[in-house]
Parts: sequence; C-alpha cells; structure tokens
Amino acid sequence: MDHVTGCRCVRCGAHYHAYPNTTTCLCGGMLDVEYDYDYVRSHMTRTALEARPHDMWRYRELLPIEPDTPAPPLRVGWTPLYRADELASRLGLKSLYVKDDGLNPTASLKDRASAMAVAKASEAGASVIACSSTGNAASSLAGNAAAAGFETYIFVPSRAPQGKVAQLMIFGAHVISVEGTYEDTFALSAQAIEKYGWYNRNAAINPYLAEGKKTVSLEIAEQMGWRVPDYVAVSVGDGCTIAGVWKGFRDLYETGYINRLPRLISVQAQGCCPLNRSLHTGEPWTPMEENTLADSIAVGVPRNADKALQAVRASNGIAVEVSDQEILEAMALLGRTQGVFGEPAGVAATAGVKKAVEQGLIERDATVVTIVTGNGLKDVQSGIRAAGAPMSVTPDMDSLLAAFDKAGLHP
Amino acid sequence: MDHVTGCRCVRCGAHYHAYPNTTTCLCGGMLDVEYDYDYVRSHMTRTALEARPHDMWRYRELLPIEPDTPAPPLRVGWTPLYRADELASRLGLKSLYVKDDGLNPTASLKDRASAMAVAKASEAGASVIACSSTGNAASSLAGNAAAAGFETYIFVPSRAPQGKVAQLMIFGAHVISVEGTYEDTFALSAQAIEKYGWYNRNAAINPYLAEGKKTVSLEIAEQMGWRVPDYVAVSVGDGCTIAGVWKGFRDLYETGYINRLPRLISVQAQGCCPLNRSLHTGEPWTPMEENTLADSIAVGVPRNADKALQAVRASNGIAVEVSDQEILEAMALLGRTQGVFGEPAGVAATAGVKKAVEQGLIERDATVVTIVTGNGLKDVQSGIRAAGAPMSVTPDMDSLLAAFDKAGLHP
Repeated sequence: MDHVTGCRCVRCGAHYHAYPNTTTCLCGGMLDVEYDYDYVRSHMTRTALEARPHDMWRYRELLPIEPDTPAPPLRVGWTPLYRADELASRLGLKSLYVKDDGLNPTASLKDRASAMAVAKASEAGASVIACSSTGNAASSLAGNAAAAGFETYIFVPSRAPQGKVAQLMIFGAHVISVEGTYEDTFALSAQAIEKYGWYNRNAAINPYLAEGKKTVSLEIAEQMGWRVPDYVAVSVGDGCTIAGVWKGFRDLYETGYINRLPRLISVQAQGCCPLNRSLHTGEPWTPMEENTLADSIAVGVPRNADKALQAVRASNGIAVEVSDQEILEAMALLGRTQGVFGEPAGVAATAGVKKAVEQGLIERDATVVTIVTGNGLKDVQSGIRAAGAPMSVTPDMDSLLAAFDKAGLHP
Repeated sequence: MDHVTGCRCVRCGAHYHAYPNTTTCLCGGMLDVEYDYDYVRSHMTRTALEARPHDMWRYRELLPIEPDTPAPPLRVGWTPLYRADELASRLGLKSLYVKDDGLNPTASLKDRASAMAVAKASEAGASVIACSSTGNAASSLAGNAAAAGFETYIFVPSRAPQGKVAQLMIFGAHVISVEGTYEDTFALSAQAIEKYGWYNRNAAINPYLAEGKKTVSLEIAEQMGWRVPDYVAVSVGDGCTIAGVWKGFRDLYETGYINRLPRLISVQAQGCCPLNRSLHTGEPWTPMEENTLADSIAVGVPRNADKALQAVRASNGIAVEVSDQEILEAMALLGRTQGVFGEPAGVAATAGVKKAVEQGLIERDATVVTIVTGNGLKDVQSGIRAAGAPMSVTPDMDSLLAAFDKAGLHP
C-alpha cells in the first residue's frame, strides 16, 4: 500500500507497519491508520472521482487496502443525503441534512466497517471472520462476508433479541449463543479467535474498521459539493463511528478537498453516556450501566473511548444527552417530516440536534448534518412505541366514520 | 406531456387523454400509458442518460410526468443488481443476477409506484393521497408522501405484519386497520376515496403506478450494459409489478435500447395462484383463497389480472408455483450465498427460478434475473422460521468445542 504510511497508537504514539491483520498497540491503545496525503492528493483528483462507481470504494486512495484488492460484492455506501427543510423549520434551524445510512445493504452504517473487514480478511488470506456483537456489527459482518464467500463465527450473548439472531442465521453465520454476559461472550470469542486464527472483526481490536466508517464523511462532503457543514451530529456508543466520522473530514482537510472542519455533536443516551460525561467533566471516562432502549449505543464500557474523545475535543465539539422519550419522539419526527425510519440509536443524533438548538448550544443559522446510523425496521417494537397504534375498524363506512370522529380527523 | 400520447384500455382498446387523475376505462379495464417513442428516442439518448442522477427519474422521457414536475424527495431506484455466481451454481444455472429492490427507501419495489403517485398527485393539485394495501404499497406511499409534504389515509387488512404497520405510523399516515380480507379493505378504501376525493394510489385504479414500477426493468437493462437476460423472474400477487416489468422492457425495445425481449417467469404461491392457474389452463382467472405466508403476494382477487396475463403471455412466459417451505428455503439460500435478506414474497421469485431449473422449464445455460421485491426486515418472524436456531454454549472452550462437534463443524 503505497498510500498508507503505517499505523500509530492513539495512546502512546508508537508506530507500526500496516499488515492486514494488525491489531492494537502493545500498550493496549487503538491504532490509527496514517496516509501519504501527497500521494492521495495527486491520485484521487476530482476528475478521477467523477468516473467512479457510487459506493464507499470510490475513495480508494483514502482506504487502507491494496490497489488490487477487489471491492466486496455488496454495494455499501453512497446512501442518500437529504436536505430536510421541513424538519429544519420544526427544529428552528436554517439548514439541516439527513444522511440515511439505514439504506446500506444490511441496513446500518456498520456495513462500511464490515465491508472493510471483508477486504482486509481477503488480503490476510483468511477464509473465516469472527466477531462478538449483539447487533449491527454482527449482521453486517454476516451479510458482507456471505456475499464474498467467507465463513463467519459470531458470538452473541443469549439475551440477544430473536430478530437480530434471525438475520445472522439467514446470512448463514455460525452463531454461538453464549449463556453469560457480553463480557463473557467477548472473552470466549477472543479465545476462539486466538485458537483458530480467524480474522478478527472486533471493533475493539481492528484499526481498519474506523477507516471504513469514515467513508460516511467523505460522502457527506462530496454530496454537499465539498462544502463543509458547521456541525455533524453522531449517535455515540462504543466510539468507533464518531472517530471514523472525524477521520473522514480530517483526511479531506489534509488533502485539500475541504478548507475547514465541522464541529462534532456527540449524542449519547442519558441512561448510558460514559463518553459524554467525560467530555463534560474533563475527567477520564468511567463505566456506566446500560439503561436505554437505544440498544446499539447502549455501551457502558466503550472500546474506542480514546479515539472518540480525541475526535470530539479536536473538533471543538459538543456533547448532548437525550432521554429515551426524546429518542422516540425523534423517530416519529424524522418519519413524518422526511420519510426516514431510523432505529432508536440511529435517530438519537437527531434528538440531540433538537436539544442542542433548544438549549442554544448551536446557532439557528448553522448548517447541520445528522447521520441516521441504522434502519428502524431492525427494531419494530420501538417503532410501535414511538408511533402508536392504527385505527381499527370493521369493513363499513359507519365504522370508519366513527373511527375518524374518535381520532378527531375531519378529512 | 409531449412524450405521452394518451392511455389505452387493455381490455377494450378505448383511448383516453392522460390527465393526472385519469383512472380506469368506462368498461372497467385498466389503462396503459402510451408514449411517442420517436420523441423518447431523440431525447433520452445514452449520452443524456450518462449525466443524470442514479434514481428512477433518470428515465424521465419514459415516465408519464410533465417535464417540470419535480422528482419527489426520497431517492427511489437504482438499487443494486448483483451477479450471483454462487447462487447460480447451486441452482445449476450458468448466469444469475439478483436485483435487490429491498434497498429502496422504505425497503420495497413499491417505492417506485408510490413515488410516481406522489408526482402525479402533485400534478393533480391534491394534498391527500389514499390507498389500500397488504403492506408495502402502503408503507412506500406513507414514506414518499411524508417526505413530499402530503397527508395520507391508508387502509390495511388487520393481518398486515407489525413491521409494516409500524412503518406507516412512523411516517405519520392515518392508518385504518380493517378487520377483514384484502378484498374488504379495498372496497372500504374505494368508498372513502370516492367520498372525500383523495388522490387514489390503488394499483387497481391508477394507470401510472405500473409506469413507476417499470423503472426496475429499465435499470436492469442499463446495469447489464443493455444486454437482455433470457428470463426475468417476478413474484406475482395483484399483477401490477409483473405488468410494469414487462412494460419497461417493451419500452426499451420500442426505443431501440434493446434488440430483444426477455421471457417472464410468473411466480405465485401454491396457496394463492389465481393468475398462474389461468396461465396454465388458458381459462379466465377465478378468485382463490389466500393461503400463504408470503403476505405481499397473498392476493386472491388480483386487480391487475388483465395486464399481468397479457404480459406473461406476450413474453412467451412461464408460470411456476412454490410452496411456503420452498419460499423459506429461498430466503436462507439468498442470504447465505448473496447476503441478501428478502421477505417471503420478495424471494418467491428466486424459489420459482430454482423450481423452474429443476423441472427443466428453463435452460441451464440461460441468463436469469430474479427481482427481490421487499426486505426481509419487514417480516422477521418468517426469517426466524427460515433460518433455524443458533448453537447454545456456556462461556468456556469445552462447551464451545462440544457444540462445534455436535454441529459437525471443524473450524
């Protein structure tokens, strides 16, 4: 990889060669991939970009893969960026954009990371990829790996919801349901990965996943004609996504594609906000309980804390916490004004934007992008909680009119 | 609309002007939109196409909208077409492509029709749109209309899956759940639409919806470099989709974009196959009960029978019926080989391709496209039935090894 100069530990600064199966620093810190921006600048020109397919691999010079590594089969990325004027006006903002990453192949932003894992596993000569997760990381790995002909072993705690396990099984993953906590599950997966030499897609370990995720920012900038929003709001759990979002903008800044950087809005659930708590207090983060219905960001022990905190601070960012009720309201608001159905964790960022405007944390004439990280179809029960039940009628006009009356509708 | 010459009744041949709210023929027959193909040929050139956005509106000259009607906000169409070599080899076919229309904004092919309905409602000066549907037509209308600022009234039979109803409610539709069959639901919606003068998005009535749906064929042809597959397999319920699929290929043939036409494979569920029964016997179709888990194609009284039967016959097509068990197996097969999770009705076409190969109805060296019409996340319960249960272990390596042994796995 001529364009990758190596990996640097975000904790101690140690430098490593970027092998396909490079993991963490000896000190335990996560690694960050570094690029030769001169190379990128001269090869990834605007003209070159114009001719390329609309998926995450169009930014190949900014991705840590060999020039001849084939893009995995599923079409990941280039999700729509909607200008959301009605929603902006309801929130009292001048300009708001919604990036609907729930339209990725397995319906979440995690497809960007999993597709990267598949590409790197192929470079590593692996035929099996493994991870532990209860949700989107697992289903995106299972789907992207299946399409590329890889076998997957996926460890889930036995409390994992049936629906998510079903998605894994449909994609043909070997799913191991572990009777224990998430920590037990993670530990067993680590032992098995060590024993069998499987390629490791745990976000706590693999430095390439954030590089996949950063493509969401590259797309936002390109879809906005290389103008930079004032703020980008991201739902935050483990920290990997917001770190990736920041990395994407930083890369574009370094290569001259953009001339300033946005401020990040880190949105966490009130019931589980260890990173935001640290951002507010300036103290090191400490674990929290996981009390929120937004399961994808219910992470009491965030594994990418270093990268995430560095990103928000470097961007002069903002930290906002939202209640479950505010998250449910944001689900309905996004659906009703923009036709976008996000899962609870996926819309937490939007709830955070609403709150940040109300609290005067961001200016009303700002341009804001909110990233919807996952599709609401993944968690229909929360959709029902957010949206209420339909009118029920017997098949006759009298019953219909009575129902309209009861609902206060006068069509 | 310079490029639209009018609408013709597919039953009696009567000709009508194409007004935005034109519905059926006085004889009760469905109307088919007709184009000035000379106009299309001279305006929709390959060079013109190259510069256009990748969504269904890129084929504007082949769509029945005014030149200045804005495209509705959600990004509908240009879903991926995957070359599915592993699946082809498992089915014993030389060449198979999967068109994943579950990646549309509300996760089904019906977004193509609903976006068209929104465009036509806007031309008609309407502010409310209504329909009855088993699910996907409804959720797609709700989402596309919400994004464009229209109010919607949507009638669903009470058996519609929770996921689909949740989608409707999130999108802010007024949802009327009717305790009765699809037929009862349709009748009640027709009465209410008549009473209140809402814009009608019922596929049984509105001639423009098939024109939206046909964009799936325009895309398939363009994504294949204007080569034409030998067969296109479509799940069939009401008949509107397969009629649209045929119309798309016919349009391209008339304009000279392609030089031959594919044969259609009409796939219905064994438990509800009134159209296929007619295709097999040559007799007029008669109603059937709705005994299949594939809810989106459980249509005992198909409303687009004329158009659908004409399409399959004109294409020298094939009719195949599949059992619910075969549908579930196709769900798992598509997931495991291609990373595509389709809903039962969405994968029925693929089950039909498998059966058609086994029965020698199609040649093993044929090139086949199978359209996945809806996302499996819409019906997770069927996913669970299709996919089986995971291995269950205690958090230690001995338990894991025993589970691998029992499952016959040797990692």
